[in-house]
Amino acid sequence: MEKKTGLAEYFPIWDKLTVQEQELLNKYAYYHKFPAGTVVHNGSADCLGILVLSSGQLRSYMLSDEGREITIFRMFEMDMCLFSASCMMKNIQFEIAIAAEKDTEAWVIPPHIYKQLMEQSVAVANYTNEIITGRFSEVMWLMEQVMWKSFDKRLAAFLLEECNIEDSLMLTITHEKIANHLGTAREVVTRMLRYFQVEGMVKLKRGGLEVLDRKKLQQLAE
Amino acid sequence: MEKKTGLAEYFPIWDKLTVQEQELLNKYAYYHKFPAGTVVHNGSADCLGILVLSSGQLRSYMLSDEGREITIFRMFEMDMCLFSASCMMKNIQFEIAIAAEKDTEAWVIPPHIYKQLMEQSVAVANYTNEIITGRFSEVMWLMEQVMWKSFDKRLAAFLLEECNIEDSLMLTITHEKIANHLGTAREVVTRMLRYFQVEGMVKLKRGGLEVLDRKKLQQLAE
Repeated sequence: MEKKTGLAEYFPIWDKLTVQEQELLNKYAYYHKFPAGTVVHNGSADCLGILVLSSGQLRSYMLSDEGREITIFRMFEMDMCLFSASCMMKNIQFEIAIAAEKDTEAWVIPPHIYKQLMEQSVAVANYTNEIITGRFSEVMWLMEQVMWKSFDKRLAAFLLEECNIEDSLMLTITHEKIANHLGTAREVVTRMLRYFQVEGMVKLKRGGLEVLDRKKLQQLAE
Repeated sequence: MEKKTGLAEYFPIWDKLTVQEQELLNKYAYYHKFPAGTVVHNGSADCLGILVLSSGQLRSYMLSDEGREITIFRMFEMDMCLFSASCMMKNIQFEIAIAAEKDTEAWVIPPHIYKQLMEQSVAVANYTNEIITGRFSEVMWLMEQVMWKSFDKRLAAFLLEECNIEDSLMLTITHEKIANHLGTAREVVTRMLRYFQVEGMVKLKRGGLEVLDRKKLQQLAE
């Protein structure tokens, strides 16, 4: 029963739903744990459902035919993940992958249930709209970065973001993983990190790095 | 009166509106001509309204601080342009510009009227959703291109697309304009077009080019 009270707390427009709609969610939504590393969604073949995160961290990314990756956006507590229910949305013509970066817990709303809600509730339809528009903004931001920003600035911004997420200046992350976030090759990351080290901004360590000069990184990122 | 019958024909979910909603549109939507070259929308400062195209061609593009451009998507007859009413959408945090590539005629639905419709009609809300999701797919496609595709393939695909739009193998377009579509520098375009010419795929002309070997371009683009 506890989890159902929970969904009401985490579903941002719960109060705009009718009692019948709330009952529908209570009946069909279920709570699920995704251990770190789980691939939650992998292209158009999957359609698990809408995820409402109660804890953890998801990463959505794009995969090239050659296995290269780039992070599109991340989701945290209270975020709603729509693309894991891409089958319910018309006009979705791209493949996206979603994986748990940390142990993640979420309510799963089956796609046909959410679709039914969207079709009958103007509040749900408009809220869905807001979320997609927010994701759209993130992709446009990323496009700007990729198109017009030099790699040193992107790497600096990424390291600062990681420090924020981890709430630590010590980052446990491989050069390979950083490359997969930023859509580039490992060697490019290694080369730039070595330059950052020479400049005194970071100190490279086994399996990670430490940010030494946050301010200088910030200036570079801007 | 004619134009109002027209909007009913061009607005794809007209039949799903109530009589009151149809009357609202008939009362407030107006017909407007945008001569080729008109900048319809230029970032978050503008908020003209939703455009429903009855003829012509619009280009939406991203501008860098340094004045570089890249085409995000194009709109043709029957298409609906949402981003010219970006003020009515929550979570839009990016700047996009929209310009008429050809003489364009469209119905303009003022943003507050469309917003009112979205908030009361689940059909309008879900249709808006579909359009945004479609645009999202186009941006994701573009991101894939920019990230993983070599420039020769992107240029080949662009030339083929232009031939389709113009219904001609003779393209009147400068290297500068092609560069602005593809988000690169003019010299890069010129160099690649010269290579295409050596390979017998195009013939460069004053102020444009002719596609000589469509098949070969197609093979390259794939």
